[in-house]
Amino acid sequence: MAGRSLKPIPKPDLADFKVGVDNAIFSVDTAQNRLLVLLVMRQEDPFLNQWSLPGTLVRQGESLEQAAYRILAEKIRVKNLYLEQLYTFGNPGRDPREAPDSYGVRYLSVSYFALVRFEEAELIADGVSGIAWYPVQQVPQLAFDHNQILAYGYRRLRNKLEYSPVAFDVLPEVFTLSDLYQLYTTVLGENFADYSNFRARLLKLGFLCDTGVKVSRGAGRPASLYRFDAEAFAPLKDKPLVFI
Amino acid sequence: MAGRSLKPIPKPDLADFKVGVDNAIFSVDTAQNRLLVLLVMRQEDPFLNQWSLPGTLVRQGESLEQAAYRILAEKIRVKNLYLEQLYTFGNPGRDPREAPDSYGVRYLSVSYFALVRFEEAELIADGVSGIAWYPVQQVPQLAFDHNQILAYGYRRLRNKLEYSPVAFDVLPEVFTLSDLYQLYTTVLGENFADYSNFRARLLKLGFLCDTGVKVSRGAGRPASLYRFDAEAFAPLKDKPLVFI
Repeated sequence: MAGRSLKPIPKPDLADFKVGVDNAIFSVDTAQNRLLVLLVMRQEDPFLNQWSLPGTLVRQGESLEQAAYRILAEKIRVKNLYLEQLYTFGNPGRDPREAPDSYGVRYLSVSYFALVRFEEAELIADGVSGIAWYPVQQVPQLAFDHNQILAYGYRRLRNKLEYSPVAFDVLPEVFTLSDLYQLYTTVLGENFADYSNFRARLLKLGFLCDTGVKVSRGAGRPASLYRFDAEAFAPLKDKPLVFI
Repeated sequence: MAGRSLKPIPKPDLADFKVGVDNAIFSVDTAQNRLLVLLVMRQEDPFLNQWSLPGTLVRQGESLEQAAYRILAEKIRVKNLYLEQLYTFGNPGRDPREAPDSYGVRYLSVSYFALVRFEEAELIADGVSGIAWYPVQQVPQLAFDHNQILAYGYRRLRNKLEYSPVAFDVLPEVFTLSDLYQLYTTVLGENFADYSNFRARLLKLGFLCDTGVKVSRGAGRPASLYRFDAEAFAPLKDKPLVFI
């Protein structure tokens, strides 16, 4: 045996990992003012039959992002997609497949945040796995630490609405200022700003373009349809800016 | 052999990982207006004798954050410390220890962002490893993908100055508005705002408290010393806010 010890011996105390990718995929049902997150029902242990964020383990030769896109493409068909890395969870004991002394293989999760247009996103039911858009406020106990991952994702979404033009990735091409306000209210809650301040602020920023078309809904006056003017926004892109 | 196959067989195509933690530790030398990052010289292969961010591999039973604090405590003594997770890098081939076909063990890096007060931070020279505060603009080619990690950390630092009161973790207890402006200029560059706008904006936010003490430096008029009023800032804490 001594003659075979030329290969470098791995340090005995380093942890071995499998790496998972878990996606917090949000959409906003603007018709019903609901913020939704995509959940799938697990088909295997651990947490068999429990709801979870869609996730997968990273394969040989695969990048983290490729794994995130792979699981997303298995669950949902979508034209436009915003995806970014969220946070990495890797504490010992976060996965019941780990030995209780955490000296076996550990399971680390790199989570991704995604935002899709509700109307364009088509869920892929494979006839076996449960899959559903869940209102964020009504999410049940999830598998693993996925409630915690979801909470991180929700915070990221709020931050992005506050500091970036991500709302215009969610809204239809043209929208009323009331649609826009409704979207913010749905995600941030009622108290973030009143409508007239919000309206004045957004118009002053100068990247909402009045299409000249008006739309009538319900009893109120016809409302102007706007679109997001990416060119007008370009000079502001790298400036710190608050949207509300 | 067939009789021994009762244990679940791991899926053959999942990647195996070691997980590293790499710290982008920044400080600002306010006396000389330099933004600095902590580098250490590697004492082993790969990248022997090359500068790198201080990093380590995660041990059995150790959390990611514990590993980040462990390597930090080996390199630097510091009273106050701001540390947060930055980003996770895990593409195949990012570490030369991986087999070229990436079918062996892969090395994933969870990076952390830290900010310390330059005057309080004491580097720990162990007599073997090189260690240095490097001006961010003069950082050489680093080991692994550490230049990329550093670029992420630098962007995070800029964002934090723009959107959070992190500057007051870096400045001394009392400071002049000119000190504060100098800090912003050192990190963000010259063109982010002129001094009088910056000064007016910060004072209007209402959490800078004039100590009543004035200090004379050079030829100009004596300048007021301010301190950050955490209580006055508390109600703003969860509001979206731009500091410049």
